Amino acid sequence: MKNPPSIPKEVRELIRQNKYNFPTSGIAPGFLQTNLVILPESLAFDFLLFCSRNPAPCPLIEVIEAGKFEARETAPGSDLRTDLPRYRIFKNGRFVEEQTSILPYWQNDFVSFLIGCSFTFESELLRSGIPLRHIEENKNVSMYISNRDTKPAGIFRGKEVVSMRPVHHSNIVKAVQITSRFPSVHGAPVHIGDPAAIGIKDLASPDYGDAVTFKSGEIPVFWACGVTPQQVALTSKPNLMISHAPGHMFITDLSDLSKATF
Amino acid sequence: MKNPPSIPKEVRELIRQNKYNFPTSGIAPGFLQTNLVILPESLAFDFLLFCSRNPAPCPLIEVIEAGKFEARETAPGSDLRTDLPRYRIFKNGRFVEEQTSILPYWQNDFVSFLIGCSFTFESELLRSGIPLRHIEENKNVSMYISNRDTKPAGIFRGKEVVSMRPVHHSNIVKAVQITSRFPSVHGAPVHIGDPAAIGIKDLASPDYGDAVTFKSGEIPVFWACGVTPQQVALTSKPNLMISHAPGHMFITDLSDLSKATF
Repeated sequence: MKNPPSIPKEVRELIRQNKYNFPTSGIAPGFLQTNLVILPESLAFDFLLFCSRNPAPCPLIEVIEAGKFEARETAPGSDLRTDLPRYRIFKNGRFVEEQTSILPYWQNDFVSFLIGCSFTFESELLRSGIPLRHIEENKNVSMYISNRDTKPAGIFRGKEVVSMRPVHHSNIVKAVQITSRFPSVHGAPVHIGDPAAIGIKDLASPDYGDAVTFKSGEIPVFWACGVTPQQVALTSKPNLMISHAPGHMFITDLSDLSKATF
Repeated sequence: MKNPPSIPKEVRELIRQNKYNFPTSGIAPGFLQTNLVILPESLAFDFLLFCSRNPAPCPLIEVIEAGKFEARETAPGSDLRTDLPRYRIFKNGRFVEEQTSILPYWQNDFVSFLIGCSFTFESELLRSGIPLRHIEENKNVSMYISNRDTKPAGIFRGKEVVSMRPVHHSNIVKAVQITSRFPSVHGAPVHIGDPAAIGIKDLASPDYGDAVTFKSGEIPVFWACGVTPQQVALTSKPNLMISHAPGHMFITDLSDLSKATF
């Protein structure tokens, strides 16, 4: 599908019918997108605390309590079991499979966490004249496992995942200023310039998503990423966790500016 | 005590020895102060979710898990059972008594929540030339039960409590700008100008704290307040909840600017 609709409700409906299974960067521009983490209720306090202690990678947008699967506050009428393009199932700390619906997996004790996604501030970067290579190249954003430790909570601990965008050196100050206004979708960069300083050996080999082209004068800029809980799942080994597939986000009805600071 | 020490650790030590039992506004200026809520572990997820859904009245600074009573991250060496000037005990939704120590009440399943306090941004207001009447008059800040509903989570629901400071109309823009930089200690005002619009009938009769003098040209400015959980306790009736007494806060070692945005 080259031209999906731009209204979140209509995109979710297409996804629900299994007609759109691609990354959501650039889709429904101007609306807030989120990562998804689903866990059994027995792990919900620990994970909520993990998010509270790690607001950069895990800024909470909405928590849907056990027994419910509608994001009533941010996307009325939605169904978290079907409205994301791709899901990943983790069992005992291992990635098991990718699915386009989790209806067969649903349990009544599941608590769902929607975590802000940096795709949200991309419209604002574009509007400010900062090009985004992964959108230009029709790829998923590049993501890497950094050497930055998250703050543990209960069983949850592990390294922070970061997304990377090449930014021309003349635009870096502006990119910092713009994304600082969006703390609920990861906010300001966590690192600028030296991949090795945060434990990344080769930009051409991302751990999640796709590699993108660098042009002359561009510097790698890194933001905390909502894929972090998936990395954390590998080290923390919850008995069951369901997540979105990296880049395949939940699109809410909220304006991307609705949670921006001034 | 007219001149308490200005170093948080020394103030906490004095309080622990029961030598300082007064409100903490203006004490240890430049350091972040917090509200305290202690609940049995069985209510911890619901309350953590309540804080996550109500970041204006309940911005979380630190959560101390069951079995621990040291705020290890924000005040190493502290003891939450003794280091606040006054505590309030609530049982089944009723305020039972005020104490200067909660050692006799401590249970191993208690989870402690430190919630940012607006006293933290007062140094910055003063430094910017905005006088604070309750400090000038050596009183506790004025607090009122507003008609603003909090977002419920589990058993927790109720009205938002607000603190009020008279601000000269020529300083209101500056007061908004300054406090907007401090989202982790309640941030920007929730209301400016008309007490009746948020359900407050008489500024001279605060629900918590003391009334203060208004001078010519001053407008009442209201901020969300960390006493909200105490008001919520009255309506939500947790079997047991311990809190600070309004105005008698926990003083951390964090600089008041450590969690400010730019």
